[in-house]
Amino acid sequence: MKIVDFKSVVNNYDVVFFDAYGVLKNSSGLIDGIKSTFEYLNSTNTNFYILTNDASRGPVELAQSYKDAGLPQITPNKIISSGMLAREYLRYKVKSGTIAYLGTDNSAHYIEELGMKTISIADVDIHDVADISALVLLDDEGFDWNCDLSKVVNLLRKKSIPVIVANTDASYPVSRDQVAIAVGSIADMVENILGRTFIKFGKPDAQMFNFAYEHISDGKIIPRNKILMVGDTLFTDIIGGNKFGIDTVLVLTGNTAPENYKSRIRSSGIIPDYICESAVID
Amino acid sequence: MKIVDFKSVVNNYDVVFFDAYGVLKNSSGLIDGIKSTFEYLNSTNTNFYILTNDASRGPVELAQSYKDAGLPQITPNKIISSGMLAREYLRYKVKSGTIAYLGTDNSAHYIEELGMKTISIADVDIHDVADISALVLLDDEGFDWNCDLSKVVNLLRKKSIPVIVANTDASYPVSRDQVAIAVGSIADMVENILGRTFIKFGKPDAQMFNFAYEHISDGKIIPRNKILMVGDTLFTDIIGGNKFGIDTVLVLTGNTAPENYKSRIRSSGIIPDYICESAVID
Amino acid sequence: MKIVDFKSVVNNYDVVFFDAYGVLKNSSGLIDGIKSTFEYLNSTNTNFYILTNDASRGPVELAQSYKDAGLPQITPNKIISSGMLAREYLRYKVKSGTIAYLGTDNSAHYIEELGMKTISIADVDIHDVADISALVLLDDEGFDWNCDLSKVVNLLRKKSIPVIVANTDASYPVSRDQVAIAVGSIADMVENILGRTFIKFGKPDAQMFNFAYEHISDGKIIPRNKILMVGDTLFTDIIGGNKFGIDTVLVLTGNTAPENYKSRIRSSGIIPDYICESAVID
Amino acid sequence: MKIVDFKSVVNNYDVVFFDAYGVLKNSSGLIDGIKSTFEYLNSTNTNFYILTNDASRGPVELAQSYKDAGLPQITPNKIISSGMLAREYLRYKVKSGTIAYLGTDNSAHYIEELGMKTISIADVDIHDVADISALVLLDDEGFDWNCDLSKVVNLLRKKSIPVIVANTDASYPVSRDQVAIAVGSIADMVENILGRTFIKFGKPDAQMFNFAYEHISDGKIIPRNKILMVGDTLFTDIIGGNKFGIDTVLVLTGNTAPENYKSRIRSSGIIPDYICESAVID
Repeated sequence: MKIVDFKSVVNNYDVVFFDAYGVLKNSSGLIDGIKSTFEYLNSTNTNFYILTNDASRGPVELAQSYKDAGLPQITPNKIISSGMLAREYLRYKVKSGTIAYLGTDNSAHYIEELGMKTISIADVDIHDVADISALVLLDDEGFDWNCDLSKVVNLLRKKSIPVIVANTDASYPVSRDQVAIAVGSIADMVENILGRTFIKFGKPDAQMFNFAYEHISDGKIIPRNKILMVGDTLFTDIIGGNKFGIDTVLVLTGNTAPENYKSRIRSSGIIPDYICESAVID
Repeated sequence: MKIVDFKSVVNNYDVVFFDAYGVLKNSSGLIDGIKSTFEYLNSTNTNFYILTNDASRGPVELAQSYKDAGLPQITPNKIISSGMLAREYLRYKVKSGTIAYLGTDNSAHYIEELGMKTISIADVDIHDVADISALVLLDDEGFDWNCDLSKVVNLLRKKSIPVIVANTDASYPVSRDQVAIAVGSIADMVENILGRTFIKFGKPDAQMFNFAYEHISDGKIIPRNKILMVGDTLFTDIIGGNKFGIDTVLVLTGNTAPENYKSRIRSSGIIPDYICESAVID
Repeated sequence: MKIVDFKSVVNNYDVVFFDAYGVLKNSSGLIDGIKSTFEYLNSTNTNFYILTNDASRGPVELAQSYKDAGLPQITPNKIISSGMLAREYLRYKVKSGTIAYLGTDNSAHYIEELGMKTISIADVDIHDVADISALVLLDDEGFDWNCDLSKVVNLLRKKSIPVIVANTDASYPVSRDQVAIAVGSIADMVENILGRTFIKFGKPDAQMFNFAYEHISDGKIIPRNKILMVGDTLFTDIIGGNKFGIDTVLVLTGNTAPENYKSRIRSSGIIPDYICESAVID
Repeated sequence: MKIVDFKSVVNNYDVVFFDAYGVLKNSSGLIDGIKSTFEYLNSTNTNFYILTNDASRGPVELAQSYKDAGLPQITPNKIISSGMLAREYLRYKVKSGTIAYLGTDNSAHYIEELGMKTISIADVDIHDVADISALVLLDDEGFDWNCDLSKVVNLLRKKSIPVIVANTDASYPVSRDQVAIAVGSIADMVENILGRTFIKFGKPDAQMFNFAYEHISDGKIIPRNKILMVGDTLFTDIIGGNKFGIDTVLVLTGNTAPENYKSRIRSSGIIPDYICESAVID
């Protein structure tokens, strides 16, 4: 598979979905030159959305962080996060009671806007769980792993409630060569201990792509072949986009590197429609 | 959780999604009394769809089998099958070449209507695979498992192509107390041998529910809280419906029995909104 | 399968292997009446060993805890723990460098007796790992899960070293109705994040049974059909004993309860040779 | 890790365990020059055993095939196969009834020597299974996959009996670039369908290594550090040998190739003590 120019690819589409980490930014900040990509998209009237497995903050805060970094084009309405899907689930399916959460107070604020009562798992009294109607895994910070993860197991042994996982990533980068364990790995561990099946939101799941798709159209229908997914990860961005029926481009600025993309595509059987060095348009 | 009357549940919804096997029919034929359910739905102007993990036939043939059994209300446009999603994938994402398939000639006809060239895995010459651009797993019949499943493995070792699984079920009933291995199990086996990730369609995946959702609206938007999913299986119908944000009812005429539904719900953590003895409305 | 008297079973064997938790003790202390079992074994000259998935302490400390509880018959030489197997591995296979460990200082003392240098993962400087030659997971206490588990992941990303898991249990009881996450679950989580395969010791693995078997014989060979494994857990004690070729008895004082042992045996396909209410001999 | 000379490695050991396929032979027959290795071992009085995941034939037939190929040194008593472990299990643990088997009549002969009644799964009448006391998976040939694999599922749904898997390999080579699905993959598929746990024999399981270890000593004890395991596969030969506490050498004539052994070792975390181009001693 040969590497092609990102601009020549983008020109064929009306809407572009971008993954965030490894495409727009990395541990050092914004990818060099990515600002001009968004200027180009605006100049050509190409619509775009950011699809991110992130439930640590709401879209307003996420957009603010892009603005601070120098991408004011990424406004809150341009952001589709797995946390937003978790919130939709709670809105539709959990009508009463208190939502226990694993994460920071900040991550819970976004859920509280629904008018729901929340409680951090750190504050749950395991002997008094009658009012807890769901558990949502939002973020890997804001609690004590040593005792609160066992508390999660004991809560679920005691009470059969829906568990919502708002970020399915296994780990996330914290510096050029270090990662941290993400809440998706915690969810898998607890599922295995209990033999349960949790409700999980995030790429590559189709619901994430569909939620973005529903956000595009203000009345008008965009055919799928006019939408492009841009990502750095075969197992989330590319297989998810492919399965949703849209075209996909793999960029080599993140998880998949120039020296191994061919072997990774071959060994996984996950095949992007295009491969580009980066999402930068000069 | 207490058992409630199906009619009293249905009255609150505008659209009903039904699973087929274990809800409308079983190994002996139609569930006793199910015809009157569809008469009631018609009389109350309640829309409905059948959501089925079946890729062995197209909707026209599936509808004919319902008509033959005495349910003429289930017309082709009422059927949403995982095979239809596989076909959509091929339409959007596989633009050229020949589609190899695992299944009967009959299961492939539906794909050929797209104008694509197909070839049964049984007819593939493993030394001449240059033109094969995708593999689709449709049905567990129509090929010789002994040699053709190894041929599938060798084809995929030789050529990195997308693999589409059009039915994720592990097994299906063939009589009151016997099952047959379904193509979903074959897919899992081949994935494990190769370390690959296939593209899979079928409940509980959100894409199935979304595809049905898109079929409902002819211009008008149906709010999700006016849609009900009716199923007999916690791990497909109920968790899938819950995750999609619609209400769910578990019926006890199939995979989940009156004597064990409580322990199954408790041990799985998958909680339907309602439980009914059956989907029959007298 | 009918329940039989433990004494009548034991009388047919020369050596008895006991699981500890759920068989000899529970969260309240020793199982009522279990002392007389060991008096009976001594009076009939029946040899016995305790096979336990525990790497938090060495056999001397484990034996002391039995003595304190009132079972002085369980001397250090009667204890076979998964921690002992991990120590054997390090003795045979890791000849130099420093062993990093996850666990308390106490759990590491036992390894240090081999004359090896050890370092708690809490004290590892991720930028200076040149001397670390192996990582051993001993216990779920003695470190900060929030930061040290991510440190484990980063250590293994940086350096390809053997990882030894000295306890494969997923969780362990801490009171009548509460459990804590065990180091076996942590191991599984890290394996999944990295796509690695760790070296794991503990029931049901054959190496545990073989290690016990080698401890029996002082010159004389005991035929396998004269050894009995007594346990409360189908997935560790019973399948492990069966596979090793010795007879097995399931007792109903721990993980498998009188009200569900039949369905558990049936659904798992793991079939003990005998079922007894308890391991108590009056 | 640098490549060293096999002869210089072997000289440090009293006993050598060899994997068969990829070490002694490949799809074209014996590895060039391997005969001289066995002449050298004889001349230096170095003991050796062949450890193979094969249950399709007994050791007498396996030895005959080596003799026919030109390796008369590999006599029946030098062969340790996973089929022999399955036979030991049946001898110790299945005392009555009929053993159903998946495999050729030839593979069953070896079990029948125990004096047990056997029946091919092809001949089982699913309505008359009262006498069947165990099922053993021996070989991927000798039955009709289309109907007999579903019959296996239905037999196990009907009757809770021990299932013994005599070969855990997922696939095996049949020519230079083709493989066939092995009975280990079939076992995994049926386990997943039923949610059962089967009893599995074969590398990397410790029981295989222990069985070989017990065969060495005629009275005398061989210390583990005088035993060497030679294999071409990290996930069976090398991790199994390492875990058993013996030294391991990876040869590059089979599954692990000269161009990728470094990345395979690094990504798996499975580290052999030595790496040699082949097991040939000139």
